[in-house]
Amino acid sequence: MINKNDTGLVKRSQAVIPGGIYGHMAVRGFSDTLPQYMADGNGCRITDTDGNTYIDFMCGWGPVVLGHRHPTVQSAVAEQLKRGDCLNGASPVMVELAELLVDTVAHADWAMLAKNGTDATTASVTIARAATGRRKVLMANGAYHGAVPWCTPVTAGVTAEDRAHLDYFDFNDLESVRAAAARAGDDLAAVIVCPHRHDVHRDQEQTDPQFARGLRELCDRTGAVLILDDVRCGFRLDIAGSWEPMGVRPDLSAWSKAIANGYALAAVTGTDALRDAASRIFTTGSFWFSAASMAAAVATITELRETDALERIARAGQRLRDGLAAQAAAHGFEVIQSGPVQMPLLRFAGDDDFTLTRRWTDEAGARGVYVHPYHNWFLGASHTDADIDEALERTDGAFAALTR
Amino acid sequence: MINKNDTGLVKRSQAVIPGGIYGHMAVRGFSDTLPQYMADGNGCRITDTDGNTYIDFMCGWGPVVLGHRHPTVQSAVAEQLKRGDCLNGASPVMVELAELLVDTVAHADWAMLAKNGTDATTASVTIARAATGRRKVLMANGAYHGAVPWCTPVTAGVTAEDRAHLDYFDFNDLESVRAAAARAGDDLAAVIVCPHRHDVHRDQEQTDPQFARGLRELCDRTGAVLILDDVRCGFRLDIAGSWEPMGVRPDLSAWSKAIANGYALAAVTGTDALRDAASRIFTTGSFWFSAASMAAAVATITELRETDALERIARAGQRLRDGLAAQAAAHGFEVIQSGPVQMPLLRFAGDDDFTLTRRWTDEAGARGVYVHPYHNWFLGASHTDADIDEALERTDGAFAALTR
Repeated sequence: MINKNDTGLVKRSQAVIPGGIYGHMAVRGFSDTLPQYMADGNGCRITDTDGNTYIDFMCGWGPVVLGHRHPTVQSAVAEQLKRGDCLNGASPVMVELAELLVDTVAHADWAMLAKNGTDATTASVTIARAATGRRKVLMANGAYHGAVPWCTPVTAGVTAEDRAHLDYFDFNDLESVRAAAARAGDDLAAVIVCPHRHDVHRDQEQTDPQFARGLRELCDRTGAVLILDDVRCGFRLDIAGSWEPMGVRPDLSAWSKAIANGYALAAVTGTDALRDAASRIFTTGSFWFSAASMAAAVATITELRETDALERIARAGQRLRDGLAAQAAAHGFEVIQSGPVQMPLLRFAGDDDFTLTRRWTDEAGARGVYVHPYHNWFLGASHTDADIDEALERTDGAFAALTR
Repeated sequence: MINKNDTGLVKRSQAVIPGGIYGHMAVRGFSDTLPQYMADGNGCRITDTDGNTYIDFMCGWGPVVLGHRHPTVQSAVAEQLKRGDCLNGASPVMVELAELLVDTVAHADWAMLAKNGTDATTASVTIARAATGRRKVLMANGAYHGAVPWCTPVTAGVTAEDRAHLDYFDFNDLESVRAAAARAGDDLAAVIVCPHRHDVHRDQEQTDPQFARGLRELCDRTGAVLILDDVRCGFRLDIAGSWEPMGVRPDLSAWSKAIANGYALAAVTGTDALRDAASRIFTTGSFWFSAASMAAAVATITELRETDALERIARAGQRLRDGLAAQAAAHGFEVIQSGPVQMPLLRFAGDDDFTLTRRWTDEAGARGVYVHPYHNWFLGASHTDADIDEALERTDGAFAALTR
């Protein structure tokens, strides 16, 4: 493919945007064939500025859980925009959304709303410190909890003091958590953890239920706050919270991404014990009370609750996983598919530097399947059996290309 | 007024939102008469859930610079939403907006986009540290630069280390800046400052041009980065940057609020010297590349550039200030009106605890004029002479009420 329009946009962007683009959507970091710019999206299809259409397995990097431009969500937003969005005070839909979150999320007695996943993780840590009067926060080595100095994976511009009260454990290794907790002593404020290990540049790792239960017990015993960073998984795996199937409930959860099918929103939910602390911290933003994204969230969560959307996502993910496994085998490749089927990742066995995997995702991209070599993908409720089968026809060509 | 619907929403919110509401829009902190919830907005009028309409002098606390539901901005958003918003990659409008910012903002060679004003101030500080390899950042005592641990005005949940490398000066006091710079020595990364002093709970204070020039000289001499926090003033006072009339250009500016007439967007603009550092930090968010708010920003900035919107805002602000001054005098009150007329504040002389001022803003609120006792107000381009005159008729009643 020669993406003339994309090439032109990239050239223009290099003059006016540092590095041409920044953050997780910088395509140059993970693909030689995928375009940097996108013109539109509809359901599970996205189209670039040169008119090439892709079956989308990133879903806007997670937010688009129902499909691009889902009619119910779009209508809710349009109706709210007819009334107003950024007013002097909240709109009634804020109360409606908070009530819906409390009713939907198993551990939630209250909700606060924000804009970025990082807002929600940062507020969670701050609430935990305010509640406990302690400082130390434990997180897993390699985990992603946002992109500000206390947690960003790149340390340019970060000072040592930004992370003075963080300590680290290994995911699924309870002994390492206990050791970190011992180091924190009576200054342990919180443990923050993702629902499963979905760090970039490695296979995903499902959570050992014993690990989750052990974290819960440790927090109960020490009076520390258990924070589940459900930003990436939330509202895609289990509507009540991603650890609900294991029966382990956090004290605080951070949410964003899929909460409003692509509209900018984040949330913290918490238990009654943390309500006072949540009301004592001061965190806010110019657009945190804006109504349109809240209307989108009410529509999205309602659709997820009242339809079989989550089952369809799991079904599509399983169909994709089964198909890719069969295809790889047929072409003589050993692949490792990891993580929940709703958030899959495929890596070629032994391909520790992702060279072969990236060749494959590039070949898939060139055939109109948008997947990532080392960050988990996302399925959505708009992926039908027919979409998956069409995607598999194309990935078959990608596998075949690797054998040539 | 008995606002039954608002009372009902407040009661419901107390069950599901910590404190009922949080952040800057918590009405209980500044008014006994204004409602917590708003149903809609149109131009410079907002209507609460009980059907009471207010002439809006907060403009959504700044963002609404052209008026609520401005048709040009609403059309741009609707058109973009027809194509897509949160896609796998940026949309062409991101390049268009970055080019427009570089063309509009006097000091800007590049732009980065985010969601919150706090995102922009935090990224600015991080870029300054990455560029200089130094750590110390100087800010004015009492200045507001956002609501995360390094800068939030309330310290619940904040650790000492979150502010380990901040030091403080007094606004408009160059000697105090020089003393802080001397304390920082060769570790001085940046000075962050607002265009004028607009701290809550005090009269606003215009910037002494000698102070601004002195900061510029100090940064030039020490190699520190001069950051202008133009989040609150930007795109309302001078389209090229709020210090442009003084001829003082920062190295970095943080923008948000008025940039997209109420849609969630923030920006950092910077000079070529900081482009490399800006590309080396890692900061991002799930919705930072979403297209609809960028389309809103292009429409807003274009409208501000191509019409007399900014002149109309200044004219409305002057008319309001003159009218209030005459009214206060006629009723025998001495009032202090401070700040730019586009972002006014009124305080009764000698009313150091704002008791009388709050009585007056409450009386104004009860008469359908939405103003604040101790946070600057905002004028917008939708305030006509007739709107100002109608507001003044109502505030006359508020002054009269205080004499009874």
